Amino acid sequence: MTAAEPERIARVALSRLGEPGDPRIAALVAEMGAVRLLEALSDERDLEGVHTDIAGRLAVNDPVGDLERAAARGIRFVVPGDSEWPGQLHDLDRAGTVHDRGGTPLGLWVRGPVALDDLGDSLAVVGSRSSTAYGEAVARGVAADVAGHGITVISGAAFGIDQAAHRGAVAGGGPTVAVLAGGVDRPYPVAHTRLLEHLAEHGAVISEVPPGSAPTRVRFLIRNRLIAALARGTLVVEAAHRSGALSTARWAERLTRTLMAVPGPVTSIQSAGPHDLVRSGAAQLVTSGAEVLELMGAAGTHLLVEPRVETRVRDVLRPREARVLDAVPVSRAASTASIARAAGLGLVGVQTALGFLARDGFVERLEDGWRLGPQGRA
Amino acid sequence: MTAAEPERIARVALSRLGEPGDPRIAALVAEMGAVRLLEALSDERDLEGVHTDIAGRLAVNDPVGDLERAAARGIRFVVPGDSEWPGQLHDLDRAGTVHDRGGTPLGLWVRGPVALDDLGDSLAVVGSRSSTAYGEAVARGVAADVAGHGITVISGAAFGIDQAAHRGAVAGGGPTVAVLAGGVDRPYPVAHTRLLEHLAEHGAVISEVPPGSAPTRVRFLIRNRLIAALARGTLVVEAAHRSGALSTARWAERLTRTLMAVPGPVTSIQSAGPHDLVRSGAAQLVTSGAEVLELMGAAGTHLLVEPRVETRVRDVLRPREARVLDAVPVSRAASTASIARAAGLGLVGVQTALGFLARDGFVERLEDGWRLGPQGRA
Repeated sequence: MTAAEPERIARVALSRLGEPGDPRIAALVAEMGAVRLLEALSDERDLEGVHTDIAGRLAVNDPVGDLERAAARGIRFVVPGDSEWPGQLHDLDRAGTVHDRGGTPLGLWVRGPVALDDLGDSLAVVGSRSSTAYGEAVARGVAADVAGHGITVISGAAFGIDQAAHRGAVAGGGPTVAVLAGGVDRPYPVAHTRLLEHLAEHGAVISEVPPGSAPTRVRFLIRNRLIAALARGTLVVEAAHRSGALSTARWAERLTRTLMAVPGPVTSIQSAGPHDLVRSGAAQLVTSGAEVLELMGAAGTHLLVEPRVETRVRDVLRPREARVLDAVPVSRAASTASIARAAGLGLVGVQTALGFLARDGFVERLEDGWRLGPQGRA
Repeated sequence: MTAAEPERIARVALSRLGEPGDPRIAALVAEMGAVRLLEALSDERDLEGVHTDIAGRLAVNDPVGDLERAAARGIRFVVPGDSEWPGQLHDLDRAGTVHDRGGTPLGLWVRGPVALDDLGDSLAVVGSRSSTAYGEAVARGVAADVAGHGITVISGAAFGIDQAAHRGAVAGGGPTVAVLAGGVDRPYPVAHTRLLEHLAEHGAVISEVPPGSAPTRVRFLIRNRLIAALARGTLVVEAAHRSGALSTARWAERLTRTLMAVPGPVTSIQSAGPHDLVRSGAAQLVTSGAEVLELMGAAGTHLLVEPRVETRVRDVLRPREARVLDAVPVSRAASTASIARAAGLGLVGVQTALGFLARDGFVERLEDGWRLGPQGRA
């Protein structure tokens, strides 16, 4: 199934009008459709409140040319209505606010064989660019583990934890996907050009900004919501207090995805972010790929264990317990000493028997002594 | 206030009859008092179910001599009824089961100036004997921090985390207390003789077994419940999977004390115990003395923050918001486009205004468009 071409073309045109993630544009598209919104915006030039540069941008917009040039380079633009569209992104419809750029993307530019609708079980692994050798080793190990179990690893292709996660997934033999802040044809950082080529060949490289777009500071933050929204769970490996990885974590939390964090030495500032996430209750602490898989698998599953009530019938009581039980008066409470006297047994032995009898409901302890419990009266 | 001497003497005698922590003895003492229980046990020699060695032990028992010899060496035996008795130990009355040695102690032998009834705010710092340099540094640092804030640090004087905690507290200028598995006059380990002398002079050395008693394996585990029960909170710094420190943690949990754990590298087996405690929800993750103090101070305090509902009156709306609000029909829902037409404003600007108006309750978003909200109808 593919979306209607006019809708796809209109979404390309709209994506050229401003920065991505605008929740107002997303809301208007959801309400009117991209084609009608584009028409309405074109008709609006004489109204108050229109961004003055919208008219100018509409004039130079060439969405059909954009799509053709992208296709020629193996880049597709996936939009709602395509069977490949990852429906989980619509959780952004409700998670965004008017204050932030959290809207559902108009579409995603994609290079690579992995289909976006296969990312429903994927794991985002994110973290600091200035990571430690410890953090990178953990990111690599966990990514290799989960990739070996068929989980796609999503990250941002940055230095540090991101690249360790991608490389770990490759080593683990699983697909891995990078979501970029710039165009999918602009390797960033340049040092990761070969890594990104590998992902474009075997996994996928994704962006919501058109090919050729530069990765700007604001686009990194906007991009983070896509990493969190595409994945079923997000793992923060290392992050200092102001790390961008924490914005991904906040999105995962807002989107009620499974949020996990790796602990580290309390003396490492790179572990301060994960520790904060665990302390606040936002993230669950994990120490291995196996624990990540457990939490990912358990998502949506409620493991309710019914308390098992052990009942014993009187027949199975030990001889001394039965003797003590017979010494407990039917009508009133009795002290341990008086029960011991009635049973002709020692205090310590009687106390032992009463403990087991109480556990199984044959007797109950009251303020003024022991009396028969539900099982004892049966 | 001091307990009656016969009661104290009877408790010493009872403590000579077997291993400490017997919940049956604790329950019988609670019910009958130590004096009457001792009499009853002495009368019981001809009854079935009496431990055969009780009679023999009663015969050689010299509780008055025990107390006199201890007093001559600066050791006191504190029992319920003494004003120094730490009442929090009675939480053990309910926490123990017939299966474990979790009973309230008959009394505590004490060397040192710290009064046991001053331990209500204390922090237990426990952990592995085979700790890492990292764990010892954290234990020392946290202990010094909390001791500097007047919190007494309780630990077990063992190698590793225990000694680091005691030394940190001394460095922080606060009192620190050791609870031993053997008699308070038997420094164990021997390498810590000087440390224990220091604690006996400036803090306290505590045990529930009489002076001269050897520290046996079972007594270490029994001792752990006292550390957890005396302190308001327990901090586990490092512990491998089978570390004895985890038994202290389980007691803290069972006694509903504040249980805290220090994270570390996931590659360190000494941090596996703390990580498990956090993962299971038993312990709260802490990374500093300040965080420990925060949790200790918050114990029993419920910090309920009422969600603050911001209400704005129509008068403070911005001109464009007021214009959009006036364009929302009173009787039915309207699309963003129709509101924009009615207001004579651009779609993007109207969407912005509707976002703010919705946040403040002036409008509400429905399936088929926007309608006035509670504030808008007011």
